[in-house]
Amino acid sequence: MKQQATDFFRNLQKEIWQKIENADGKATFIADEWQREEGGGGVSGVLQNGNVLEKGGVNFSAVWGKMPQVLASRDSFGDGDFYATGVSIVLHPHNPFVPIIHMNVRYFEMNEQKCWFGGGIDLTPHYVVPTDAKFFHQQLKKVCDKHDSTYYTQFKKWADDYFFIKHRKETRGVGGIFFDRLSANDKYTLQDRFEFVQSVGNAFADIYTHFMQLNKNIPFGDTHKTWQLLRRGRYVEFNLVYDAGTKFGLETDGRIESILMSLPQHASWQYNFTPQPNSQEEFTLNHLKKDIDWASYN
Amino acid sequence: MKQQATDFFRNLQKEIWQKIENADGKATFIADEWQREEGGGGVSGVLQNGNVLEKGGVNFSAVWGKMPQVLASRDSFGDGDFYATGVSIVLHPHNPFVPIIHMNVRYFEMNEQKCWFGGGIDLTPHYVVPTDAKFFHQQLKKVCDKHDSTYYTQFKKWADDYFFIKHRKETRGVGGIFFDRLSANDKYTLQDRFEFVQSVGNAFADIYTHFMQLNKNIPFGDTHKTWQLLRRGRYVEFNLVYDAGTKFGLETDGRIESILMSLPQHASWQYNFTPQPNSQEEFTLNHLKKDIDWASYN
Repeated sequence: MKQQATDFFRNLQKEIWQKIENADGKATFIADEWQREEGGGGVSGVLQNGNVLEKGGVNFSAVWGKMPQVLASRDSFGDGDFYATGVSIVLHPHNPFVPIIHMNVRYFEMNEQKCWFGGGIDLTPHYVVPTDAKFFHQQLKKVCDKHDSTYYTQFKKWADDYFFIKHRKETRGVGGIFFDRLSANDKYTLQDRFEFVQSVGNAFADIYTHFMQLNKNIPFGDTHKTWQLLRRGRYVEFNLVYDAGTKFGLETDGRIESILMSLPQHASWQYNFTPQPNSQEEFTLNHLKKDIDWASYN
Repeated sequence: MKQQATDFFRNLQKEIWQKIENADGKATFIADEWQREEGGGGVSGVLQNGNVLEKGGVNFSAVWGKMPQVLASRDSFGDGDFYATGVSIVLHPHNPFVPIIHMNVRYFEMNEQKCWFGGGIDLTPHYVVPTDAKFFHQQLKKVCDKHDSTYYTQFKKWADDYFFIKHRKETRGVGGIFFDRLSANDKYTLQDRFEFVQSVGNAFADIYTHFMQLNKNIPFGDTHKTWQLLRRGRYVEFNLVYDAGTKFGLETDGRIESILMSLPQHASWQYNFTPQPNSQEEFTLNHLKKDIDWASYN
């Protein structure tokens, strides 16, 4: 499985590069290969200043070695040798009406015994637009339903709980799906889990290029740009304070530039910013909540 | 002591507001009083869009209540009632040649028995200028030497270790002094400790307004501004990932807008940014190191 998963992820990265570059029309992913001293490495693919996208990364890595002590105990990975491979994506667009997107799909092995898949896709619109959020969740539901009729509900809730900025009491965006430690069990083989993760990974590019094409020409002004920068500030807060992948990377002395590719080119903070009553900004804040049933939103 | 320290800090905030406003010539601190449900409150003083300063805060607080469980054990505060009061400052200037400054002075009591002072001042120039760093450290040394000839060396090292961005392997700026848990001991009474903290607090405004006046008219261009935004990105990384005060605030459900006043109005990230050889930016990176003896730098 190690080899199969690694090959799939390596190839997925290239396919996504291609589709995103086509949809952008200008940006090119710059491939940056790196090695990890303790074992393995990866290829970061970073894009800056495209037509639609301002900054983003579609990264692949496959790393292995001894599990760092701090994680072995705290995160109950246990002692021993690990192998981890996956693709991580964050894309920040220019236009405030094009949402930020994040995907991660990964495979993990401990001592060649405990094996699992994890990952998810979630959407962070600067402006929450219910039809967009609905489309997004319906696409994810379709992907999940092909594999298990309970996946979507479970993994949607998991995303709501995970992508939550506790200190702001708001969700990062409109959520999506999030799942971890999907191992073989009575119902599913590891191969079944792999097929699910393949479906998720393969669905990504079409979902996001839909939003790129749909929203890239919506006119915007200074108010929208200011709001976008503030929302990106929240994105930075989430990633640096809560995101497990980021923390894992920082604590295990990972490749910083690859880990922090998730941060936007520009972000902003203002003291006590309060949106105008009945504005699109206020609407957005009121919809950065858990437990909104976006897939059947009316 | 509780009352004395609280009165001193409350008054210090107002004095600093006045001196910074005078030096800025345009900005006014907007006082925002807040209450804490579990006990106490504070007055945030936030400034935006001045002549010299873009964004900053000079905050006072005095809070009390039961020590939150997570901190009682992890940070060895122990169980019981706490009382904490202090002034916290971060100032972000417009001009990249004016440094960012941070000060915190605080008094802490557990169960009206264990009592201590803590705090420090540190400087984060976007461009390291040795004469400025030297002036800064000499001022701090003077303040320390009035109280104890070992303070400066001790507290300068403490600042080097504390204001270190581990994942970047660089210091946040040129350091300064940092100290904590200064309680009464064989050599000093709590009153002695208080007098030291008063000296630190009272020294702040003159030190910083010196840099405001000295550097506010240095001409700068796009390259300098770009670099400033990247350095501010590092400031954000330090504060959200490592800063103990920020973590304490986020974990104890503190007043978010007051805690995160330390973040700049605008910050930026670029993938793998590398300064030009022999540039001012490269010089800066090479001097964001621990253990530089700035006070006697030649």
